[in-house]
Amino acid sequence: MTSTCRRQPERGRFGRSGNLHLRTCDSGSYDEHMSVRTPDPNSGWLGDDELAAIRLRLPLLYVEAVPVHVDGLGRVTDVGLLLRATKTGSITRTIVSGRVMYGETVREALFRHIEKDLGPMAFPLLPASAHPFSVAEYFPEAGRSPFTDERQHAVSLAFVVPVTGTCEPRQDALEVTWLTPEEALADAVTSEMEGGRGVLLRAALASVGRLN
Amino acid sequence: MTSTCRRQPERGRFGRSGNLHLRTCDSGSYDEHMSVRTPDPNSGWLGDDELAAIRLRLPLLYVEAVPVHVDGLGRVTDVGLLLRATKTGSITRTIVSGRVMYGETVREALFRHIEKDLGPMAFPLLPASAHPFSVAEYFPEAGRSPFTDERQHAVSLAFVVPVTGTCEPRQDALEVTWLTPEEALADAVTSEMEGGRGVLLRAALASVGRLN
Amino acid sequence: MTSTCRRQPERGRFGRSGNLHLRTCDSGSYDEHMSVRTPDPNSGWLGDDELAAIRLRLPLLYVEAVPVHVDGLGRVTDVGLLLRATKTGSITRTIVSGRVMYGETVREALFRHIEKDLGPMAFPLLPASAHPFSVAEYFPEAGRSPFTDERQHAVSLAFVVPVTGTCEPRQDALEVTWLTPEEALADAVTSEMEGGRGVLLRAALASVGRLN
Amino acid sequence: MTSTCRRQPERGRFGRSGNLHLRTCDSGSYDEHMSVRTPDPNSGWLGDDELAAIRLRLPLLYVEAVPVHVDGLGRVTDVGLLLRATKTGSITRTIVSGRVMYGETVREALFRHIEKDLGPMAFPLLPASAHPFSVAEYFPEAGRSPFTDERQHAVSLAFVVPVTGTCEPRQDALEVTWLTPEEALADAVTSEMEGGRGVLLRAALASVGRLN
Repeated sequence: MTSTCRRQPERGRFGRSGNLHLRTCDSGSYDEHMSVRTPDPNSGWLGDDELAAIRLRLPLLYVEAVPVHVDGLGRVTDVGLLLRATKTGSITRTIVSGRVMYGETVREALFRHIEKDLGPMAFPLLPASAHPFSVAEYFPEAGRSPFTDERQHAVSLAFVVPVTGTCEPRQDALEVTWLTPEEALADAVTSEMEGGRGVLLRAALASVGRLN
Repeated sequence: MTSTCRRQPERGRFGRSGNLHLRTCDSGSYDEHMSVRTPDPNSGWLGDDELAAIRLRLPLLYVEAVPVHVDGLGRVTDVGLLLRATKTGSITRTIVSGRVMYGETVREALFRHIEKDLGPMAFPLLPASAHPFSVAEYFPEAGRSPFTDERQHAVSLAFVVPVTGTCEPRQDALEVTWLTPEEALADAVTSEMEGGRGVLLRAALASVGRLN
Repeated sequence: MTSTCRRQPERGRFGRSGNLHLRTCDSGSYDEHMSVRTPDPNSGWLGDDELAAIRLRLPLLYVEAVPVHVDGLGRVTDVGLLLRATKTGSITRTIVSGRVMYGETVREALFRHIEKDLGPMAFPLLPASAHPFSVAEYFPEAGRSPFTDERQHAVSLAFVVPVTGTCEPRQDALEVTWLTPEEALADAVTSEMEGGRGVLLRAALASVGRLN
Repeated sequence: MTSTCRRQPERGRFGRSGNLHLRTCDSGSYDEHMSVRTPDPNSGWLGDDELAAIRLRLPLLYVEAVPVHVDGLGRVTDVGLLLRATKTGSITRTIVSGRVMYGETVREALFRHIEKDLGPMAFPLLPASAHPFSVAEYFPEAGRSPFTDERQHAVSLAFVVPVTGTCEPRQDALEVTWLTPEEALADAVTSEMEGGRGVLLRAALASVGRLN
């Protein structure tokens, strides 16, 4: 299934129940996401056992992207959140996320992970600025920072990335839903985000002047 | 009255009622604050009538500062909010705020207004970085941005500024109360801030990694 | 005359003489630029005499834009500099620059001035981020900051703005020439920029990771 | 030997020869610097062989600090550069630099490496802002970015850090010399910095408004 991300996205409507009607972009193949649940497609570069060992020894470098739609003045109009059903049946939300590989620039990693999660037709406009809006530090244990990742210590460079194209999800495990900044800031949304990313989402919206 | 701002500030305790017990720093002379209520002490540089006329013709340039305490690693531990009683008896909160004068650098204006609101012994540590954490746009009418100022169109460069000294409020009209980031982010606090500055406060905390 | 700004811009070649062969984008109507030489097209909003008087009393708020081309990963590949011949026959370079009007947002002002200087088909992609890469302070006298403006005290919010379209200059007074970051950083280029904007250009390139 | 870093630092004077008279702060123990020349004091956490293997497989996360002196308004007045003699007798300059360890926050790593290179009495004032002024990407091969590190692919979060105390170098291998921004920007200085860090130094000065 393919759906257009740009121009008049149907927005997920949700009430207090968090019940979401998602009709916009299905995405998938969220393989290398910060999660133990899916295999790492690039782990061939490293070997699963090796990666598992390193994860206990070194902080890993990640990039993350908050996909957005912008209007003609560059103002963020919608935020794209990735969804998936967990094994227990609940829905969690997340953003584009993945490791920086050896020899890869941060921009290359960012582009690769956006393409992986949103498909090759998302047409992301990577910002000219090289500054992440946040450096998010994920620790296995809670309380050291707002962010947790049970698998590892990861440090993530997080960017807001406008996308202008069409989503072609590569698996049906994930969907993209577009919310207005107001909707995305609702506690019902941010509280169900993986690993504390609701905080990251708020920081993203702060960086584009869309907190309220 | 003088009270120490640093080291173990007694924090304002507040409940849902917004009822605040303020025991820390009294401040005052909040003259040139973005408000119609108090005369502009620098208006002599311009003339009250002239300033009033210009306010309907040009955006005015402001600086704003969110005073904070930091620990030895630079992490923000407390946020200083200014309080005052309005004529109607309610309490509003705000931050350090004031105009940039002709011939004055942004840093000079920032220092001057911090001294004005927090007293000469606040010992602010202006950041080496020249980047405001936000550019806040205040319009007389609501809805154009998160920020309103009934008097004027003002554009404010907003900074987080650690203070390390002692508050010597110069009038009893204002107090400074210190809140943890968690306390400061409570809706009861941010919603009572003047001109939408609760949003600015959240953006300030996002910029120092203390949203949650 | 119309010329394509995007894709394979012919770059101005220049030697020590500063002799430039400009074949790319002609632009014009650089009216409201920070210069005494051209009338302010918006001064009707304020009146020339009034504006002249205010310029001696208040800092004026400006926006500035460094137009760039970017590649598919968002990396800056070219920088667009505006040129014009002065009355004395020398060529000066500058960037997009103009005042923020009463009631106008920073984004609106930025868009308006880009359209004014680069034409309506430049198709600028204003950044989602609300943060200027620099806040440039212009004073009439030299030495207070790297920036001077003989007419006034101006404070400018400066942004890097990718453009993707076609330049349609509206006067022949100005041209746009595209230089690689390396070319743009050459002393021969930056030293001939108006009001110290060579420093601002370097800061722009620092912000996009293209200093070298 | 101990010398005061603050207040009236004697500045290194240098001519075209790059001949430096260093009288200020000796520092040392630059062990964990991005260099093959010195052993990694924390490699015990990982094992030299393990680290060597990982360096060929994963990007490593670093922090870097440009130590500065600031005046009462937070303006940078001096930049501290670390020096050392190489085996070949030439002098190279660098900045504070080191790895982020597993379980360590970026702030903790930054503080640890500043203490390691500048001594426990340097009294750094880590910025409240969590934003690095640059994310520097070091690759073993030249040309991928302005930065190279023959040992590894490293990604560094770089900060400007005011120091207010006294340097107590722990080895005599390193010295700290303080230069004005103007001196530090001289080609003779930046060109002799390790791994392309002259570019990083310029970006640091851009971020504090001290390019010129």
